Amino acid sequence: MAQINENYLKLQAGYLFPEIGRRVREFQQENPQADVIKMGIGDVTQPLTPAVIRAFHDGVEEMSKAETFKGYSPDLGYDFLREAIAQNDYRQRGADIHADEIFISDGSKCDTGNILEIFGRDNIIAMQDPVYPVYVDTSVMAGRTGKYSENGYYEGLVYLPCIAANGFIPEIPKQKVDIVFLCYPNNPTGTTAGKQELKKWVDYARKNKTVILFDAAYEAYITDPDIPHTIYEIEGAKEVAIEFRSFSKTAGFTGTRCSFTVVPKNLVGTTSDGVKKPLYPLWYRRHTTKFNGVSYPVQKAAAAIYTPEGRKEVKATINYYMKNADILRESLSKCGFQVFGGQNAPYVWVNSGRGIKSWDLFDKLLNEAHVVGTPGSGFGPSGEGYFRFSSFASHESVLKAMERLKGLKW
Amino acid sequence: MAQINENYLKLQAGYLFPEIGRRVREFQQENPQADVIKMGIGDVTQPLTPAVIRAFHDGVEEMSKAETFKGYSPDLGYDFLREAIAQNDYRQRGADIHADEIFISDGSKCDTGNILEIFGRDNIIAMQDPVYPVYVDTSVMAGRTGKYSENGYYEGLVYLPCIAANGFIPEIPKQKVDIVFLCYPNNPTGTTAGKQELKKWVDYARKNKTVILFDAAYEAYITDPDIPHTIYEIEGAKEVAIEFRSFSKTAGFTGTRCSFTVVPKNLVGTTSDGVKKPLYPLWYRRHTTKFNGVSYPVQKAAAAIYTPEGRKEVKATINYYMKNADILRESLSKCGFQVFGGQNAPYVWVNSGRGIKSWDLFDKLLNEAHVVGTPGSGFGPSGEGYFRFSSFASHESVLKAMERLKGLKW
Repeated sequence: MAQINENYLKLQAGYLFPEIGRRVREFQQENPQADVIKMGIGDVTQPLTPAVIRAFHDGVEEMSKAETFKGYSPDLGYDFLREAIAQNDYRQRGADIHADEIFISDGSKCDTGNILEIFGRDNIIAMQDPVYPVYVDTSVMAGRTGKYSENGYYEGLVYLPCIAANGFIPEIPKQKVDIVFLCYPNNPTGTTAGKQELKKWVDYARKNKTVILFDAAYEAYITDPDIPHTIYEIEGAKEVAIEFRSFSKTAGFTGTRCSFTVVPKNLVGTTSDGVKKPLYPLWYRRHTTKFNGVSYPVQKAAAAIYTPEGRKEVKATINYYMKNADILRESLSKCGFQVFGGQNAPYVWVNSGRGIKSWDLFDKLLNEAHVVGTPGSGFGPSGEGYFRFSSFASHESVLKAMERLKGLKW
Repeated sequence: MAQINENYLKLQAGYLFPEIGRRVREFQQENPQADVIKMGIGDVTQPLTPAVIRAFHDGVEEMSKAETFKGYSPDLGYDFLREAIAQNDYRQRGADIHADEIFISDGSKCDTGNILEIFGRDNIIAMQDPVYPVYVDTSVMAGRTGKYSENGYYEGLVYLPCIAANGFIPEIPKQKVDIVFLCYPNNPTGTTAGKQELKKWVDYARKNKTVILFDAAYEAYITDPDIPHTIYEIEGAKEVAIEFRSFSKTAGFTGTRCSFTVVPKNLVGTTSDGVKKPLYPLWYRRHTTKFNGVSYPVQKAAAAIYTPEGRKEVKATINYYMKNADILRESLSKCGFQVFGGQNAPYVWVNSGRGIKSWDLFDKLLNEAHVVGTPGSGFGPSGEGYFRFSSFASHESVLKAMERLKGLKW
């Protein structure tokens, strides 16, 4: 008799974004005339850029002829893409990362969930609160937590509150943790961490042999020269950190699918007997056994992001979204919201300033303004009362949404 | 101190195909002039067909304009593809599978590995021997087995020998098993199972509440009308089976990446208290939490396989490979090999007929004929002495390889 994985029964309700989708669909079925503006799921709206499209077409064309056809991808992805990443994203920033430490994959969502597979089940895992729900939910599904408690936390996880009082940078935990997820520029708060803040974490990790799982999916939105783009800009980080990067937000690849994960070769974990073991071969084995590579034309398209034209075009798209962030910050302030983030990051994190709970605000905005955002409490208990607006929309719809919010009765 | 998942340390050597790749690379480095013919990894060589290429380009073009741009895919994939699958692969064969039971994914390798996540760790898992190594290795990595024993088996797994004596159809186990992997048309043996044989397994599963994980990645190679293309042609299979299908071998998608998994809504597992729970919501949750959809242009390309032109073109490609299978069967028989499979399946499974072990034969063929096949023992102890030839090559290279084998000294 096949038994299910009962850890799934501990999960609370739906995964946040499908739940938002469900409420929006219900509203639209009941209000088919309503012009709903979606700024909830952080999904891009601007098309792929011309240089990327050209390379994508070229890749497809190569698949049409036996002489240039590509079957299975090399184990860790094509060298042309891995080299471009190592050169542009790392070596140019003084971070000593080699192409063979880069694993091409189809999404940081997948990788941040799957990475835990190479770690033992009894590690103590810490994560920011509020947090990208995938880190929590995949920990629950893998049996790495206890039950859900009424206060919104799962037993066994260490939550690191990120609130206005600490500038949304978590304090170093007093207890030892084995693994810590950090995300900067942060989803959902849209805030960033400077070198000094990250150095504290790297130092903590080196001292305690903690592995940092660093999610830098939004690094392309950084414009401030003092903010590091990669954890490997911090000295010693190669000994303690795995980094996740994605082309989803960098270049509009949410529907195209390509990302990468960096596992430095000198990063180690230990056996239960205390024997040091490098993590690289473990992730290599996981990647080659349970994944089969990213579509060749997609890898070609991704590599075009690093060409001079590609870089220029992608930057223009990012600037487009960041103009939205500026509009959001200004308009929401005027509407009486407390506003955070939205600089060096595409998310604006607000508090209604009127003591309204996150899901209640979600329903109010959907019903009264036909505007969809993301309830902060969906990201964790410390997000209660907050709300995330995404800059991934057209200027027109952002302006229209803000106009509607100005007219709301409170 | 971060501890590793020590189950990985139980794994024997490399995953089979990277190991083959390593030996071939070493040989080529030492013998740069050698014209190596690769029939080892089951990787296709024929290009994507014109209808698929056109749809692929169209999908890329849609990504270039804001009006037609696609961000995140719908949770389980695009309806146009799921509907085409349900209609063509199932309803037309009398199998009552609905589009909403189909999960689009990027590979059956991923899905057959990941599916175990929704099951409890203490289930008894059975699998064919020889077997596609992913089922074994992912079970080991997830801590579902004991140690590797010297006879080539992992403790805790139930192995079902598939040998010439039983026509490569495993006998129904005497003990109860909770989960069983079955693969037909079979990889690696290239043999098939008829309705009567599959019915025995479905009846066993219904009686014992066993879940069948049915890998039908090679169904497109079936020409014999008496061989079922899907497990759901067997009465009652919807109550007990999950089916995996891939476009990799059907339409040359090994480097393009698209596949699907069918989880019928009335399929159940139980909790440890014996409460029945449908598996569909568990896999839905897993899929939406740890995966983020297949590239839109790839889904468009996959849907083109179901158009009248696409079907015709894909059939021609399959016929091309099956002509290779005919050449292999005939030539290898003449060379004194015992030959199995290669009808209704792209793999030819041979025994050297000379008492040679699989890896020794691999090295002999590589060194003396510059021909790469797959050692049968890499698929499990019952594969020892056997060797897999893949039809995925050009006619010219298959003929050349067979010519070289004729000249070998034994």
